[in-house]
Amino acid sequence: MVNVCRVSGDDDTIHEFDRATAVALRHADEGGRAVHDVVIDPGWTIGDKPHGGYLLATIARAAGDAANAVEGPEHPHVLSATAAYVGPPALGPAEVHCEVLRRGRAMSQVRARLVQQGAVRVEAAFTLGLLRPDAEPWWGGERAPALTGEPDGDSGVRRPSAGPGGTPMPIMDRVDMRLDPTTAGFSVGEPAGVGELRGRLRFVDGRAPDHLALLYAVDALPPATFDLAGTTGWVPTLSLTAYLRALPAPGDLVVRQRAGLVEAGTVDEVCDVWDSRGRLVAQATQLAGVRTP
Amino acid sequence: MVNVCRVSGDDDTIHEFDRATAVALRHADEGGRAVHDVVIDPGWTIGDKPHGGYLLATIARAAGDAANAVEGPEHPHVLSATAAYVGPPALGPAEVHCEVLRRGRAMSQVRARLVQQGAVRVEAAFTLGLLRPDAEPWWGGERAPALTGEPDGDSGVRRPSAGPGGTPMPIMDRVDMRLDPTTAGFSVGEPAGVGELRGRLRFVDGRAPDHLALLYAVDALPPATFDLAGTTGWVPTLSLTAYLRALPAPGDLVVRQRAGLVEAGTVDEVCDVWDSRGRLVAQATQLAGVRTP
Repeated sequence: MVNVCRVSGDDDTIHEFDRATAVALRHADEGGRAVHDVVIDPGWTIGDKPHGGYLLATIARAAGDAANAVEGPEHPHVLSATAAYVGPPALGPAEVHCEVLRRGRAMSQVRARLVQQGAVRVEAAFTLGLLRPDAEPWWGGERAPALTGEPDGDSGVRRPSAGPGGTPMPIMDRVDMRLDPTTAGFSVGEPAGVGELRGRLRFVDGRAPDHLALLYAVDALPPATFDLAGTTGWVPTLSLTAYLRALPAPGDLVVRQRAGLVEAGTVDEVCDVWDSRGRLVAQATQLAGVRTP
Repeated sequence: MVNVCRVSGDDDTIHEFDRATAVALRHADEGGRAVHDVVIDPGWTIGDKPHGGYLLATIARAAGDAANAVEGPEHPHVLSATAAYVGPPALGPAEVHCEVLRRGRAMSQVRARLVQQGAVRVEAAFTLGLLRPDAEPWWGGERAPALTGEPDGDSGVRRPSAGPGGTPMPIMDRVDMRLDPTTAGFSVGEPAGVGELRGRLRFVDGRAPDHLALLYAVDALPPATFDLAGTTGWVPTLSLTAYLRALPAPGDLVVRQRAGLVEAGTVDEVCDVWDSRGRLVAQATQLAGVRTP
């Protein structure tokens, strides 16, 4: 497979995240339609299910390739992403089908779907554009919250590579995620009842964060409902929306996940991501299924 | 045109909103694909542009019809909606192309797009399910904010049917929108600088709110950036996401629109909608373009 991927390191190393999200163009037509081959990687899973944010980053890579395949202004970065999770794909080969809906001066819009054996697994849409490294906030933008256990970033409760009941979480061998101890009570059966998790995030192999990493980060923390006593089981994402607002500076990301309303079997969660400068770089919401007593 | 629309009044009256969002099935196939004819109505416009929430409600009606056209559990209500606004459609005939991605026990997922003369104008995806009128919040869910000028609901600053510079806003003849005076300073050149608008909303012809009306409501208020000095011009929605959490009780809706971060030509806005019981019934976010000095 020829990797169509931008490697973010300072050298020629292919980092794990870039390898796992690589896409290979199979064909493209004049009308803005393209098909990319991808391989759903066993390393980016929780249990036997591929991680939703990892899938979104993979689809986004194909969408960016499709949008920039033709002449015009470069729109290398995801500005917004929406994804409907139809069903988890199996590990192994899959396809991303893209359709460029608009190539504008400042932005492109692309519809993309992850397809496996003819079945749509994730249906997504992207706005693509150019995020300049020197951009500054004009108004608003909450600053990063202080985490307990600062400032070395190696404190905090590291998420293990096996979940409750021994569920393997291979992704946690690739990502170093440290939860603020004040929000990690759920891991010892003592949720705080606030509906909020906070933590730090980095790739274990030193890959710097970029716009694709942010698409993983906005769905990286455990469900915020883990901080509420009484909810049980997994919390499958139905619909996820992410806005990427700035290119992240090198260093750890700070991520906060908050539950809103739990009613009628669904919960809305809001995620915010800050970079090492304390700047708000990504925002997301999701609607997920949840089981309550 | 045969109207495929559920009329929400107590009698046989076809209300304006239902007439304007009516869809007529042209054809459907066994694979879950359907095409509906629609007419983009001149009454639901701001200037010469159809209102984005009105378009979303129209597309949602077609999606619901497509999802429920085949045997299975009834999923009459929108639970989540995402829309990418590719370009404003012209007034007059258009098509909605639907594809049912999944028919589950509790939910269906549908991709839908508004197409005009072969060009995609809005690309959307929906989760559909059943919202029960007796559902109650299990956890969370902010209560409705108090508005200045209560409780008769007829106070407040009614949005006129002509905007700044005389721009016609025919939609304001069909919707009675009253802004909380403390957030309506922008209309006399005195924005509060908070980035928040609040108001009450009802259909002028007495139509009760339902799940489709909520899809209009989450995009109904003026942009929250109007409350910030210095931004100019319109604020075009690029991507909108709505979660409908409960069926609204009859009566006025309370709507709050808040700006988050303004940076690099975009703003995120969060919208919450409460019903006459004070219950949170809809939540939305959008990423929009904005011009700053």
